[in-house]
Amino acid sequence: MNIGLLGCGNVGAALVELIGRRAPQILERTGVELRVMSVAVRSLSKDRDVAIDPALLTTDAASIVSDPSIDLVVEVIGGIEPARHLISAALAAGKPVVTANKELLANVGVELFTEADDAGVDLLFEAAVAGGIPIVRPLRESLVAEGVDRVMGIVNGTTNYILTKMSEEGWSYGAALAEAQTLGYAERDPTADVEGYDAGAKAAIIATIAFGAQVVAGDVYHEGISGVTVDDIAVARRLGYVLKLLAIADRFDDGSVAVRVHPAMVPEDHPLAAVRDSFNAVFVQGGAVGDLMFYGRGAGGYPTASAVLGDVVDAASNLSKGSHASIGSIVPAVLRPVDELSTPYYLELEVLDRHGVLAEVAGVFGAHEVSIRSMEQEAIDTPDAAPDAARLVFITHTAREADVRATLAELRDLAEVTSIGSVIRVIGNDR
Amino acid sequence: MNIGLLGCGNVGAALVELIGRRAPQILERTGVELRVMSVAVRSLSKDRDVAIDPALLTTDAASIVSDPSIDLVVEVIGGIEPARHLISAALAAGKPVVTANKELLANVGVELFTEADDAGVDLLFEAAVAGGIPIVRPLRESLVAEGVDRVMGIVNGTTNYILTKMSEEGWSYGAALAEAQTLGYAERDPTADVEGYDAGAKAAIIATIAFGAQVVAGDVYHEGISGVTVDDIAVARRLGYVLKLLAIADRFDDGSVAVRVHPAMVPEDHPLAAVRDSFNAVFVQGGAVGDLMFYGRGAGGYPTASAVLGDVVDAASNLSKGSHASIGSIVPAVLRPVDELSTPYYLELEVLDRHGVLAEVAGVFGAHEVSIRSMEQEAIDTPDAAPDAARLVFITHTAREADVRATLAELRDLAEVTSIGSVIRVIGNDR
Repeated sequence: MNIGLLGCGNVGAALVELIGRRAPQILERTGVELRVMSVAVRSLSKDRDVAIDPALLTTDAASIVSDPSIDLVVEVIGGIEPARHLISAALAAGKPVVTANKELLANVGVELFTEADDAGVDLLFEAAVAGGIPIVRPLRESLVAEGVDRVMGIVNGTTNYILTKMSEEGWSYGAALAEAQTLGYAERDPTADVEGYDAGAKAAIIATIAFGAQVVAGDVYHEGISGVTVDDIAVARRLGYVLKLLAIADRFDDGSVAVRVHPAMVPEDHPLAAVRDSFNAVFVQGGAVGDLMFYGRGAGGYPTASAVLGDVVDAASNLSKGSHASIGSIVPAVLRPVDELSTPYYLELEVLDRHGVLAEVAGVFGAHEVSIRSMEQEAIDTPDAAPDAARLVFITHTAREADVRATLAELRDLAEVTSIGSVIRVIGNDR
Repeated sequence: MNIGLLGCGNVGAALVELIGRRAPQILERTGVELRVMSVAVRSLSKDRDVAIDPALLTTDAASIVSDPSIDLVVEVIGGIEPARHLISAALAAGKPVVTANKELLANVGVELFTEADDAGVDLLFEAAVAGGIPIVRPLRESLVAEGVDRVMGIVNGTTNYILTKMSEEGWSYGAALAEAQTLGYAERDPTADVEGYDAGAKAAIIATIAFGAQVVAGDVYHEGISGVTVDDIAVARRLGYVLKLLAIADRFDDGSVAVRVHPAMVPEDHPLAAVRDSFNAVFVQGGAVGDLMFYGRGAGGYPTASAVLGDVVDAASNLSKGSHASIGSIVPAVLRPVDELSTPYYLELEVLDRHGVLAEVAGVFGAHEVSIRSMEQEAIDTPDAAPDAARLVFITHTAREADVRATLAELRDLAEVTSIGSVIRVIGNDR
């Protein structure tokens, strides 16, 4: 089975090394003989961590895709073009494709799945969501009959590392981000990670395969973690919660779906609360199977290459049997807007500690049908606080987002409310 | 796709109900049309939770297997016979088989896999290990190229429930077992659960598919939890560990394997430590992918039926394509005896608190090359303790089991050692 590899960064180099080392065992276990035949790179002269026979390298990716001696194409270039055209050409030529490209699949995945089905070959993408964790295959195969109605995940290792350091070491957001950059977890421009775009792309792919409904990156609601404070995390912990950046995909009884990424308070005995450092985990709520969680390394050259290699073996085995794994029917998604979602909320207000203020604030909640589950009041004695300032922390019962926003708008206009602090959704028995 | 179901207990009844309810969605997503055609039961007149058309019921299981209108057989009878002969007959007749039968597979699995391969049809068994958790498919497919060298799991929900109650509520072993029996988690005779036989059967299957080496139930070393005390758990917690019953399958560099079930101290920040109540989880250490964990419901009618149904869809889809999933080559296992395994140990001794006793005890450890990582000494003031009794709790560095046994044998002969208490292995960076 001759493999053409498009791209040779971290993941590509790890894949070449892994195939070189594991090919004999793979042959023995599966009967599939793998060989990397050509590798498309941007520069022939770049230094690489893994020694690759220079005779395999080419800068002409299109020649790999059209080469009749290549049986199977692996795409680890990333980004939409030229990856999209190369994959389409490979599929049209009857070559199965394995890709780790979340951006591509979160934007034009369904179009590519259709091309693969039309060509009767595999398009596999385990590595595109949560790196080395086998989640795509269980959702596509093991759970296809399950009627999954929620998938939520910690699918960005950089932000989970930052939140873990803020939570366990008391570091500020800035200090934790700087350390993540030093360790190579975060880019110099960390926007894609910390504002939730990376997690959102993965959530779109997860929703599409879990629900059979086409969701693209632009359909996902985002809030990032750059506004999260050590104080929020400390209060959360005192109330029995751990703060995590979650990607949440819901399907409702009317068939509509909602996909969103935002910080969330997770109860400390929830399995997602124990996912620390740069680890990822995907939590699945099924109708019959109940709660499932898949945990592991969501990024990194070798974990991602491991997922690619599992797909390569599968695609090669299918190809030799003349079969392929169809993604199944995918219908257009009916999206439910975030305003219409319901969850408990954590809300923090600063108020002037005057007679009747709590009654007035509670009245505003009640007028918008937002019911309060618990409230804590504490004096604020920081140097810049007003002398009679107090902080109120509320946890609401499950409430509609639109009602909570209306409540906050009205609270903002009260003379006694000096500022509105963090507003964080609470996850648990919220639907 | 006409299904013949052998057995209609909890899992079988849930499966009939699930197929009845989910068949339209399964058809829409996968193109596979499922119908339960006949159900073999022991008694036609038994009351069942799920209404089943009496015309489908038969007490003649062999007639289902030989019926040419049955395309696919599901076996949820359990036990070795008659399940084994029925499955063999179905495979020989070219019918794919889905089974949830761990006892069967842990004893004659490899023989049956060979029969399935010879017949060119599927024998799928996701439900046989850890119920609803997709672990068999990831090990067989996603991780086949990974070179997994350790799998460890909490694969018995009953014992995990008991240990959770002892740990979090301070219940005695007896009280927790009684509650597990009341809830229907534990049988009236709880031996198979509490002595680790159930976990051992699952561990044998896991080792066989993870390592491609044939391990049967009788190869698995067992220690149960009936000797675990609330005191052990409390000391463990103070030292930063949670006590769990683990099934551990190891493959070593020389190709030998060891499979065992025993209580273990798990560091409290290890993902397995957060697996509570009757939940199961399987932790996989791969060469490239690093640490993975799969978490969910390990038992119960619906979770198990969900796993069976995922396999049924897969087998039906393969059958219609004329393909099947081979288990791959399985070689005989070279077993490494438990005496030659190495891990850190937690050891508890009661001694007479006399001058020089600690030096003498430490000397015995040293003579057997068992190195001490930490020691705690406390006075014992229970009414029946000797007036100068003290308790010593040791955690060792990684030590060979045989050396630890020799150390304990020599300690037992010391006049100052009045008794040897718990001896519990510590899991973490032990290899």
